[in-house]
Amino acid sequence: MSLSKRIPIFLLRLLALGATVSATLVMITSHDSAQLFNMKFEAKYTNSPTFKYFVLMNAIASGYSLILLFLPSKSSYGHLILILDLVMALLLDSSISACLAIGQVGKNGNSHAGWLPICGQVPKFCDHVTGALVAGFVAAIVYFLILLYSLHNIMNLFFLKT
Amino acid sequence: MSLSKRIPIFLLRLLALGATVSATLVMITSHDSAQLFNMKFEAKYTNSPTFKYFVLMNAIASGYSLILLFLPSKSSYGHLILILDLVMALLLDSSISACLAIGQVGKNGNSHAGWLPICGQVPKFCDHVTGALVAGFVAAIVYFLILLYSLHNIMNLFFLKT
Repeated sequence: MSLSKRIPIFLLRLLALGATVSATLVMITSHDSAQLFNMKFEAKYTNSPTFKYFVLMNAIASGYSLILLFLPSKSSYGHLILILDLVMALLLDSSISACLAIGQVGKNGNSHAGWLPICGQVPKFCDHVTGALVAGFVAAIVYFLILLYSLHNIMNLFFLKT
Repeated sequence: MSLSKRIPIFLLRLLALGATVSATLVMITSHDSAQLFNMKFEAKYTNSPTFKYFVLMNAIASGYSLILLFLPSKSSYGHLILILDLVMALLLDSSISACLAIGQVGKNGNSHAGWLPICGQVPKFCDHVTGALVAGFVAAIVYFLILLYSLHNIMNLFFLKT
């Protein structure tokens, strides 16, 4: 791959690394507590399997993005990297959607199910989760762009040779 | 594209259509009610924005799968269809993940947030949601396979010409 094609991919991967590391750290450090009727109520990401899944997926994507930054570009890896990029995009997409669904219940509750909103009690926790979601969303968009750019390059090559 | 390459894609798209239509219908027909302290409690998919999102995404994917079944295969559409397949895979992935996160709370509750499980009260509703999730999961896997198969074909062509 030529240098002019490698630079955009490198920058996108750098952005993906920044976004996934931010999402992981902001979610891990989310913490707040509230006092209700002499009961101390603590909110942290380990309280929900969905938030743990979000941290795990973003940590995996961070590691993957870091490795890909330093991998020498050889066309023999091309197939595998495209498939792995696709899997990462799907995993990030999945973790954000799951987290957003739980976050929505945390913010608005669900009166039909009798689930009360909790963000009024633990606003700092909810702010952190929102921040992590924004970073995760940026990461997912960046992976989508990486896929589009890779596909564009592959198809251009193919059409030039036809 | 040769016929031997079109048949697997046609079968996968047929399977995707079946799975997305099933997911949509099973979710729409999910309904159960329970009597608690003289209060009637009704569970249906419209109670949750996440379930409504699931229905919308699966309905869109059903329509898309149906159109693609009857679209004549012209290589000029190739780029666009690959990108649209990718978008469908991401949307289905997102809808299942969100729905699974809410379903998990519905089944197990979340003691930290004070959200009680509801599946004990409305088991028929939960069974339907589980069924819809399984169908949605099949649809997402099929779209992933469609993507892999399309990429495989594109890259094979590319490598043959190099």
